[in-house]
Amino acid sequence: MEKLSISDEAGGESKQQQQQQPSKKQQKKKNKQQQQGNEDGKPKLSRAEIKAQRLAARGAKGGQQQQQEDPLAHKYGDMKLVQSQTLNAYEFTELSALEEKVKGTGDGEVCQVRMRGRLHAVRGKGKSAFVVLRSGTETLQCVFFVDKESKVVSKGMIKYVTGLSKESIVDVEGVAVVADKPVDGCSIKGVEIQGTGLFCVSRAAPLPFDIADACRREDDTTGGTVNQDTRLNNRYIDLRTPANNAIFRIQSAVGQLFRENMLGRDFVEIHSPKIMAGSSEGGSSVFELSYMGRPACLAQSPQLCKQMAICADFGGVFEIGPVFRAEKSFTHRHLCEFVGMDFEMPIKEHYFELLDVIDDLFVYMFDGLKQKKKELEAINAQYPFEPLEYLRPSLRLTFEEGVKMLQEAGVEIDPLDDLSTETERLLGKLVKEKYKTDFYILHRYPLNARPFYTMPAPDNPDYTNSYDVFIRGEEIISGAQRIHDPVLLTERAKACGLDVATIESYIKSFSYGAPPHGGCGVGLERVAMLYLGLNNIRKTSLFPRDPTRLTPP
Amino acid sequence: MEKLSISDEAGGESKQQQQQQPSKKQQKKKNKQQQQGNEDGKPKLSRAEIKAQRLAARGAKGGQQQQQEDPLAHKYGDMKLVQSQTLNAYEFTELSALEEKVKGTGDGEVCQVRMRGRLHAVRGKGKSAFVVLRSGTETLQCVFFVDKESKVVSKGMIKYVTGLSKESIVDVEGVAVVADKPVDGCSIKGVEIQGTGLFCVSRAAPLPFDIADACRREDDTTGGTVNQDTRLNNRYIDLRTPANNAIFRIQSAVGQLFRENMLGRDFVEIHSPKIMAGSSEGGSSVFELSYMGRPACLAQSPQLCKQMAICADFGGVFEIGPVFRAEKSFTHRHLCEFVGMDFEMPIKEHYFELLDVIDDLFVYMFDGLKQKKKELEAINAQYPFEPLEYLRPSLRLTFEEGVKMLQEAGVEIDPLDDLSTETERLLGKLVKEKYKTDFYILHRYPLNARPFYTMPAPDNPDYTNSYDVFIRGEEIISGAQRIHDPVLLTERAKACGLDVATIESYIKSFSYGAPPHGGCGVGLERVAMLYLGLNNIRKTSLFPRDPTRLTPP
Repeated sequence: MEKLSISDEAGGESKQQQQQQPSKKQQKKKNKQQQQGNEDGKPKLSRAEIKAQRLAARGAKGGQQQQQEDPLAHKYGDMKLVQSQTLNAYEFTELSALEEKVKGTGDGEVCQVRMRGRLHAVRGKGKSAFVVLRSGTETLQCVFFVDKESKVVSKGMIKYVTGLSKESIVDVEGVAVVADKPVDGCSIKGVEIQGTGLFCVSRAAPLPFDIADACRREDDTTGGTVNQDTRLNNRYIDLRTPANNAIFRIQSAVGQLFRENMLGRDFVEIHSPKIMAGSSEGGSSVFELSYMGRPACLAQSPQLCKQMAICADFGGVFEIGPVFRAEKSFTHRHLCEFVGMDFEMPIKEHYFELLDVIDDLFVYMFDGLKQKKKELEAINAQYPFEPLEYLRPSLRLTFEEGVKMLQEAGVEIDPLDDLSTETERLLGKLVKEKYKTDFYILHRYPLNARPFYTMPAPDNPDYTNSYDVFIRGEEIISGAQRIHDPVLLTERAKACGLDVATIESYIKSFSYGAPPHGGCGVGLERVAMLYLGLNNIRKTSLFPRDPTRLTPP
Repeated sequence: MEKLSISDEAGGESKQQQQQQPSKKQQKKKNKQQQQGNEDGKPKLSRAEIKAQRLAARGAKGGQQQQQEDPLAHKYGDMKLVQSQTLNAYEFTELSALEEKVKGTGDGEVCQVRMRGRLHAVRGKGKSAFVVLRSGTETLQCVFFVDKESKVVSKGMIKYVTGLSKESIVDVEGVAVVADKPVDGCSIKGVEIQGTGLFCVSRAAPLPFDIADACRREDDTTGGTVNQDTRLNNRYIDLRTPANNAIFRIQSAVGQLFRENMLGRDFVEIHSPKIMAGSSEGGSSVFELSYMGRPACLAQSPQLCKQMAICADFGGVFEIGPVFRAEKSFTHRHLCEFVGMDFEMPIKEHYFELLDVIDDLFVYMFDGLKQKKKELEAINAQYPFEPLEYLRPSLRLTFEEGVKMLQEAGVEIDPLDDLSTETERLLGKLVKEKYKTDFYILHRYPLNARPFYTMPAPDNPDYTNSYDVFIRGEEIISGAQRIHDPVLLTERAKACGLDVATIESYIKSFSYGAPPHGGCGVGLERVAMLYLGLNNIRKTSLFPRDPTRLTPP
């Protein structure tokens, strides 16, 4: 084996002890056990094996200089590189499960734990060390006291602990106890750890910024701040903050709630190709590439594929996947790559069938997100926001009604043109005042404001069977009943000045019997951003791509 | 309103009747009702409104020439373009819900239905017409008899019905009755429809191939066949077959079961960018593009991002998203764009923790897929396959054990090199014979066979903490414990001949405290293909992209 690593330095392990990978014979035995079916389906180790492994793991530790002198030297130090030398040598407790575990401990029993996390903060004070251990959105206080009586913490241990760099990954051993008073500044307030051991799993080099600064509220001027570019340049560090951890748990939940609702309708999840032979919608900016020498581009939306799935009798379909827009939009709400949550479904008669689905879908999502109390709390602590107000069923206004509200508020506006971002925001305010909702559907948009494939309204050629949906005055959905008739589609394409030859295959796909249908696309990052009242979409994109940003990673 | 469409021709509707879009006043009333919260959350229409709509909808129909003479002319004909003129004018019954509905009909009651579907087949015989209606994986017999007594079917109706092109979308009205004997050749065998009306929603132009031919078994030489290129060139028609409809329901289920299992472990679903500044893994072929004038490429895997999410303390993460490989692999199992199901998780000690997850995940998926009886039946009817055999817990073999089995079977093989596709398939057969399983995990691959970031085995420098997973002898997963130590990572990169400067940011990301971790990537299309025993991955890709195919759409 090659010479290893920084974390290998302190290892005092013999070659024999290193080889704690189960032997071939043991492995065979284990496989046999597995085939015979152990109750929990996991490979079982004998007591002797576990003991041997624990010994090996202990041998791998040991403080630096103190090793010889300190009888407690085996209770701290850099661990040997975790390389699958041991299996189930320790029982680990997750921070999020700690309070429950303590509650379940009987009177007189000791709640012994080993926990892995990051050294969020560390402070020495005489013969004691105070450590804040962090894992995800949780922080936990661990205290180490040198106490001659009990002989569980040595001066060497304190020195080792306080000498570790913040953000290192460590294993803390100790006894979990109910805290005398609520622990200030930690998310786990009711329990703390009386440390008896600490082992470093992975040492952290000095960080480009302090996590404590990255956790600070944007309006808090009492300490250091980290600007957005520094955060994004070091995104995988920035993402460690409890608020960011929580934001991406909310983002994950948005997608999952969307999916649950779709699957509850027996909709089929599809995966459409992102590399296309032509521009998705024609006209807009697309990212171009060479596909084995042929011109291609990245899909601006899965709409064509969704519509083809409808024509292939899939019934309702949905997709959650990347969407690419090569647009130089330098705003707080545009990205060049984002996650689209799309659905498309056959309708029997009316586009209100689509609005019914959208209405139910969002109420379902909002209800579900409300359950994520711990995450919302963590986000609120750094980015305070007003909880979203929404009605059930949701408010629906026609475009004409929206225009009237704006006109009554003194806004001059062309009633047959699209709304500007500013006007949308203003309408959102008016709606909120009048109807007490942050979420509403605006439908029956003017023909001029929609793409050629949008079904015109049956009663008035100026309008269409289309809709946008808003959260806190910002658009999150655009959708419509689509034209499923090739003749009307051709007519509308021509009227919009499109070269019909370039969309011939699209039009043709409706010639072989096409169900009436419609759908919409939702921006995942926007839903998360607006639900949480955040001020920038980059906060809800894992590794944002905008006109000037293509890294990391 | 512009002149509309082919399906508009027969409309005899007056202008007044066209305007059945709810008036603004009615709309307001409805909105008010919605805010007050109707029990089902849907806009309610009064009886009068419904009646008015039905009248309008009826007015929109009518046979061509027969219209004047036939008193039943209003019971058949081309419908006016469905453009949201009516709302809830009819109650529709889905084919899949029909048998239940008939069962629920009381003695003496009549089960009146309106159903929308495709004209799968139509045949006239004297004064009768036999129609097979298709929707998704379901087919249903509908019969029309001219009967002077009851006066519900006219000669004109028969002429209209038998004159319609196959694959047109139609609404059938009639009475659902228990069939005298099981209906041959339809998926719904216990019920048939005694037709009383048929309206064409969308007429189908002549198809490039017959759907009946596209439904035929590949070993059936009694009728026409459709070759793969013709199918794929017209994929949105090919996808209409019940087997294909079912395949994509299975594909959807594979993704959902994967997700359910991941979410059950509290893993976070992430969405990593697909546009990257550099090649994902270096070396392999990537699709290159220009990103606002800067060189970029499409991600070959989300691995970097997954690992960074681990370093950002997300805990376990997973992603289901597109993966791009610009490789000229002309095989039955390679695509240039496919769906990757990836996960990555911190481990405490050993890569067996990863194998435990994979084991549980796949047993969960296989158990779940087994429940999809209707879909599996529809696929089996066209593409017969042996049900998958799997053990619980799953079989785990070391690479060395696999090599030994091959050697014992007389295969000459380098024990420290990767297995060829052929050898993998042979080992699959040997494993199946010996252990009666189509699914197994092969782990502890030789160092030479794995990428530089794979954690070496602790006890033997020739091996690694890695694994592949196989279904029916074909690889579906590749994964490993990753090196989380920057020094070892640099060393291994150099040993593999990589230019360390090109992966500096990757290596650096592990410098700020990195948890031990590992993961894997699963090909969604491969899992679906191999579970179903299909012979080509193009069968489980919605719109496949291979070295020569970039369309449709």
